[in-house]
Amino acid sequence: MPHRLMPQPSYAQLESAFTRLYWYQHLSALGDWDQAVMMPPAGNEARAAAMAELDVLIHNTLTDPAMGDRIAAAEQEDLDPARAASLREMRRQWQLATVLPARLVQERSLAATRCEHAWRDQRRDNDWQGFAVNLRTVIDLAREEARLRADATGLPPYDAMMDRSEPGASAARIERAFAEVKQWLPELVRKAMDKQAGEKTIAARGPFPVASQRALGAELMELLGFDFRGGRLDASDHPFCGGVAQDVRITTRYQEDDFLQSMMGIIHETGHARYEQNLPRDRVHLPVGQARSTAIHESQSLSFEMQLARSPAFLSLIAPMIRKHLGAQEAFEPDNLARMNTRVRPGFIRVEADELTYPMHVILRFEIERALIEGAIQVDDVPSLWDEKMQTYLGVDTRGNYRNGCMQDIHWSISLIGYFPSYTLGAMYAAQYFAAIRSQHGDLDARIAAADLSPVFDWLGANIWSQGSRWTTAELVKRATGQELNAMHFRFHLERRYL
Amino acid sequence: MPHRLMPQPSYAQLESAFTRLYWYQHLSALGDWDQAVMMPPAGNEARAAAMAELDVLIHNTLTDPAMGDRIAAAEQEDLDPARAASLREMRRQWQLATVLPARLVQERSLAATRCEHAWRDQRRDNDWQGFAVNLRTVIDLAREEARLRADATGLPPYDAMMDRSEPGASAARIERAFAEVKQWLPELVRKAMDKQAGEKTIAARGPFPVASQRALGAELMELLGFDFRGGRLDASDHPFCGGVAQDVRITTRYQEDDFLQSMMGIIHETGHARYEQNLPRDRVHLPVGQARSTAIHESQSLSFEMQLARSPAFLSLIAPMIRKHLGAQEAFEPDNLARMNTRVRPGFIRVEADELTYPMHVILRFEIERALIEGAIQVDDVPSLWDEKMQTYLGVDTRGNYRNGCMQDIHWSISLIGYFPSYTLGAMYAAQYFAAIRSQHGDLDARIAAADLSPVFDWLGANIWSQGSRWTTAELVKRATGQELNAMHFRFHLERRYL
Repeated sequence: MPHRLMPQPSYAQLESAFTRLYWYQHLSALGDWDQAVMMPPAGNEARAAAMAELDVLIHNTLTDPAMGDRIAAAEQEDLDPARAASLREMRRQWQLATVLPARLVQERSLAATRCEHAWRDQRRDNDWQGFAVNLRTVIDLAREEARLRADATGLPPYDAMMDRSEPGASAARIERAFAEVKQWLPELVRKAMDKQAGEKTIAARGPFPVASQRALGAELMELLGFDFRGGRLDASDHPFCGGVAQDVRITTRYQEDDFLQSMMGIIHETGHARYEQNLPRDRVHLPVGQARSTAIHESQSLSFEMQLARSPAFLSLIAPMIRKHLGAQEAFEPDNLARMNTRVRPGFIRVEADELTYPMHVILRFEIERALIEGAIQVDDVPSLWDEKMQTYLGVDTRGNYRNGCMQDIHWSISLIGYFPSYTLGAMYAAQYFAAIRSQHGDLDARIAAADLSPVFDWLGANIWSQGSRWTTAELVKRATGQELNAMHFRFHLERRYL
Repeated sequence: MPHRLMPQPSYAQLESAFTRLYWYQHLSALGDWDQAVMMPPAGNEARAAAMAELDVLIHNTLTDPAMGDRIAAAEQEDLDPARAASLREMRRQWQLATVLPARLVQERSLAATRCEHAWRDQRRDNDWQGFAVNLRTVIDLAREEARLRADATGLPPYDAMMDRSEPGASAARIERAFAEVKQWLPELVRKAMDKQAGEKTIAARGPFPVASQRALGAELMELLGFDFRGGRLDASDHPFCGGVAQDVRITTRYQEDDFLQSMMGIIHETGHARYEQNLPRDRVHLPVGQARSTAIHESQSLSFEMQLARSPAFLSLIAPMIRKHLGAQEAFEPDNLARMNTRVRPGFIRVEADELTYPMHVILRFEIERALIEGAIQVDDVPSLWDEKMQTYLGVDTRGNYRNGCMQDIHWSISLIGYFPSYTLGAMYAAQYFAAIRSQHGDLDARIAAADLSPVFDWLGANIWSQGSRWTTAELVKRATGQELNAMHFRFHLERRYL
């Protein structure tokens, strides 16, 4: 049966409603960016009120009683596969918004605000007992949310929480993938450290003026294909990629004694940015034209930062740019740059972790937060579990050090549960993409070193960026690489780089 | 009869609705500022769509059918005088928004977009005939709008157009005030030019680096009481004061060969900014707590720029700051700075005009646009009238020079009719305020020279800023200065400065 070319009435009405939502979300993205980058401190209260009003508007638009009826009606219409996929994503956003009662949304928001606010001081003061009081409320509400989401979706509770940012993710599958990683990664960390113990790495000598770091960053963004006609680079306390697809705004933070932090941060955010800048522009106003998931987004930033930028080929390509902006010094020789960017050092802090130890930080959090949501453990069990796992996975002693242990991340305090796995899933996907790219381009490293990055951009553009949310995550990855998530590619990548 | 302390049901509902509108307007102000200051070019289309969606939302919120009923019901409630004034301003905003049919709003918007867009090239090409075609449509629609607004308000048509930004303004009263000015100002211009012909003014030698101009501007803003905790200074093509009361953002433009443009521009915008920053914060979310009118806003910027900053006392105060940021040179001696800032030179262009000739540019436009709206003249009559008035008022020959004549301003092309008088009304109000301040502070100039600007700030704060829209413009000015608008103060100010 041939598919009709014109959209059907209910589906067409949904496109109008979601387009309106998209423009509201544009204003929300602008407000967020400005708040982090431009807004003076005394503007905060009024901005928060305006953004809250906008949140209400977005929520009301999405949960309008007519919306559910229209979705149900559209599902009876004869839609072509592209529109059917579009409708699937609309239903998903509608369901995410409607499943929670307003009372729970409000309680969660209050509990998160209170917990996060107090956490800032409690972390500084290493005050686990104080933090635990608030965290218990957050976790109780998260369990309630997980049950409601599980009932609505038929997913297990933790999967239902992951589903908010990682649709289709299965804790059981992630557990299997992470179980594999746990088998080989600790040993690989030890071997890499042994190998590096005999290497001499020359430290770069600062200070590196902010203006020079910024100029280097901007040149790297150009090299990486960032379109400055539709985007900006600014500074903020916490680096992020924000704005909208037509106007993508990345930020970094500068330290005058450490150029690598801003340089690698900019490259990382540029990966996010190119995904946004190259989403299918004719559908980006609809959920189906938007980024697939958090892990797929992270797979773009990690393709840029880990797969590409920490490779010897890329570092040899950019060594002259580094010297141009920061002056010539021995530390900027390509081999030394490669050593600087692959140094392995187990430590307390996830966001400061190297490529090799990072997954263990994520696996630990995944195991703890999943057990919390499933009720297998309680908040009071967290510190001892944390200590035990840090010792087992990374050989690090965190006993009594809550500040740099289980209190280091903001995520749990704001009820961002089910989010951590995305970081390592992203790293695994990125490794899988590059395996596919290398299988097509045996000369990939030579081409990268010769400033020809088109094999990477063309592959990501065709297989990921242009696809938006046309496919489920599993389909997307399978269409792109010929197989579903396969942690072996990650292992091969790490062994190739670190052994 | 005692007034009840609690707001009445309908009035209270109106406060909620207008508070919601205020937060929407916050987002609109942020979008406008970002568009002018930060947005990369390729972001324009999406931003325009998001802003249009927001405009629709604001319009729909304001013209919700229930709003008119609620206003009528609230007018039957027993409100204290402050709430009655608040209700008066709500009715005013509601009426401004509801009086035009959607068809006319759309036609006006399309005609303005077309006319303004073509005007950019037509002005460059001196193409009056081409411009006139589009302008006729704009004027036809403006006449229709004026008739509808006149019917709704009982005002004469041109007054009804002015009422949009200048509530309560009467063309008849303005005509009388301007008739006075026309009697003495041309002669004063001649005398001032004769006097200045014998004076030697030393030109400042650039270049003046942008960073130095900016630092000077920021220091002047501090001196003038701008609160950087709730505001910013940035650069844009067209200087403006934007943002919201809690986060006021002014801009300027820099030319390396002319520091006065950015310096006086910053001082001017700081006048607008202090009005916004000092509106009654507990009512700023309601129309009654917002700025009174365009002329009153302009009276703040001109109090800062003309009354204060071009005075010898102020220039002697800031001469050391100028030298500190731009280096020492003879041109920066206080007497020379005063001569630079009061030089009189009749010219073609309104926005480049000096303090003394500026009103004649405004009077000419007022006379022509009023006659256009009233139908006394047609679009084709504009150039010859322009030529005749420029010759009579300023002795300037504009024949055939449409580009720098009747095509120089953007206002008419975008249907901004009834707006020009505000500029000179603002200058007159500012002179009247300073006459009042001087009557309380005989030592005003000495205090200004000694960096004590409190007489000015205290007076403006108590009489204008903190009053918002509590009173009609006429009441506001009478309460502040003891009399309604009196152009004699403007005359005395100019004679004192220029003779």
